[in-house]
Amino acid sequence: MNATIPVNPILVVGSVALDSLETPAGHRDACLGGSASYFSVGASLFAPTQVVAVVGEDFPQAYLDHLRSRGVNLEGLEIIPGGRTFRWRGRYGEHFGDAQTLETQLNVFEHFSPKIPPQWRGAKYLFLGNIDPELQGRVLDQVENPHLVALDTMNFWITGKRHALEAVLSRVDLFILNETEARLLSGERNVYKAAEAVQAMGPRVVIIKRGEYGALLFHPDGVFAAPAVPLREVVDPTGAGDTFASGVMGFLARADETDFSTLKRAVLTGTVLASFACEGFSLDRLLSLTTAEVEERLARLESLMKV
Amino acid sequence: MNATIPVNPILVVGSVALDSLETPAGHRDACLGGSASYFSVGASLFAPTQVVAVVGEDFPQAYLDHLRSRGVNLEGLEIIPGGRTFRWRGRYGEHFGDAQTLETQLNVFEHFSPKIPPQWRGAKYLFLGNIDPELQGRVLDQVENPHLVALDTMNFWITGKRHALEAVLSRVDLFILNETEARLLSGERNVYKAAEAVQAMGPRVVIIKRGEYGALLFHPDGVFAAPAVPLREVVDPTGAGDTFASGVMGFLARADETDFSTLKRAVLTGTVLASFACEGFSLDRLLSLTTAEVEERLARLESLMKV
Repeated sequence: MNATIPVNPILVVGSVALDSLETPAGHRDACLGGSASYFSVGASLFAPTQVVAVVGEDFPQAYLDHLRSRGVNLEGLEIIPGGRTFRWRGRYGEHFGDAQTLETQLNVFEHFSPKIPPQWRGAKYLFLGNIDPELQGRVLDQVENPHLVALDTMNFWITGKRHALEAVLSRVDLFILNETEARLLSGERNVYKAAEAVQAMGPRVVIIKRGEYGALLFHPDGVFAAPAVPLREVVDPTGAGDTFASGVMGFLARADETDFSTLKRAVLTGTVLASFACEGFSLDRLLSLTTAEVEERLARLESLMKV
Repeated sequence: MNATIPVNPILVVGSVALDSLETPAGHRDACLGGSASYFSVGASLFAPTQVVAVVGEDFPQAYLDHLRSRGVNLEGLEIIPGGRTFRWRGRYGEHFGDAQTLETQLNVFEHFSPKIPPQWRGAKYLFLGNIDPELQGRVLDQVENPHLVALDTMNFWITGKRHALEAVLSRVDLFILNETEARLLSGERNVYKAAEAVQAMGPRVVIIKRGEYGALLFHPDGVFAAPAVPLREVVDPTGAGDTFASGVMGFLARADETDFSTLKRAVLTGTVLASFACEGFSLDRLLSLTTAEVEERLARLESLMKV
């Protein structure tokens, strides 16, 4: 990684939250969470990362320090005086999979209207984290001619704000979603048909995450099947999807390419980052993650698919 | 494929059946089925294949002709005078997956006691199809010093004849099973832990099939993750597992090697053969399959995993 060539920064808009988690491995209260937190810490291994999000006055200084310790730029983080931070409480069952939401307090997130600081409006790499698709659209309105826009979403928006989601999807380049979401959005059970239907909605590139089965990359130049990292123990899968996206976007921003070959490596990098995210509660493992550890696991992942 | 070097024959012991099938794509009555039928037709693309099985006098001559048309050697097929052939009736739901068994008539299969013809007892490559593990053991007793013994089984035997299954597993080299079976047999949910537990029961090599997610190969020299063939339409998944095994064993017998690299290619070949099996009812697609078609699809499968 050549320090003499400046790397394009990545702009992320999403949530910064306080998560309370119960998993078969234990529990944690009010720990650092949110899509923008996971994404920015992961992406900052590869590129300068700029966060647009909102928190309340209750947000612990220590968590801000955690993010800044990884070089994350928080100039776009609004802190609402007297406000309370977005809180989520969730529980994972014996086999992990999707979390059961026990409680959601939107708090300051309820009236979040992302404002991109003027100096960031020329962002080349933009990640629209899982927020209301109308807000994702308003972020796009504020950014001038980005090189690559990636989007994440969830079942809640697919079902509840389909029209707004379709509108913003028509404006993005890369859509990262899981298999269940792809089926829900497309109405197709077959993952190949689902991916084609999703591509037809606008995104030139679609990545379908399949959890312990890996990920499929659909690019105009072909399809790539990435295996999952052989994880023997999962501690907390919260944020794995955002961390996956951070590896993809981090790799692309650093390479400053979006061809099929670069995207394949980006998917492998996202896979590796997501595996680390699952190995600790909250961002514990990510906050100490080194480039050397990523490289080592990438080599191990690639060895799984070497014929 | 060099015609001047004789290829080791493969011996298969299993069922030859009359299947009645209902799938979302249609239905068929009393069509050719059974593990030994699927396996022998698949394997005969690669190596001479010898079948030990039993049918009744009602077994249609046309089906014997189908098998013989692919060069399958039926000298070990017992035809019981006045007997009725094993019959199975099954239904697949909208998303395929495991079949629902509607009816099983064991008929002549109830008293099947496999007898290996003397001229086949020196078999180097032996496939023990999904039958009672006690019978699988008795087959092994009759074979002298095989080079590679592979075994298939099902939930029914894992639950109902666990002791006999463990006894025969300690004598085989290669065990091919699906993810659900691996979890049931090992008591481990994590597929990597399950595979290790299964390897500890005896088989040096374990292949775990994951349906539309591909297959994992566990070999003493490492792990290999094969993607699935991107199938857009499934007609009938009956026999896909036996056909997968036929590609694996066919490739190994032809190569006359069982090292990690050869096993990887064998798994890819099995994956490709299984995909063809799903494209028609019964053995329809397999009976017309050519080596060129297999090679073409293998290249397509490998392109999915090329970084």
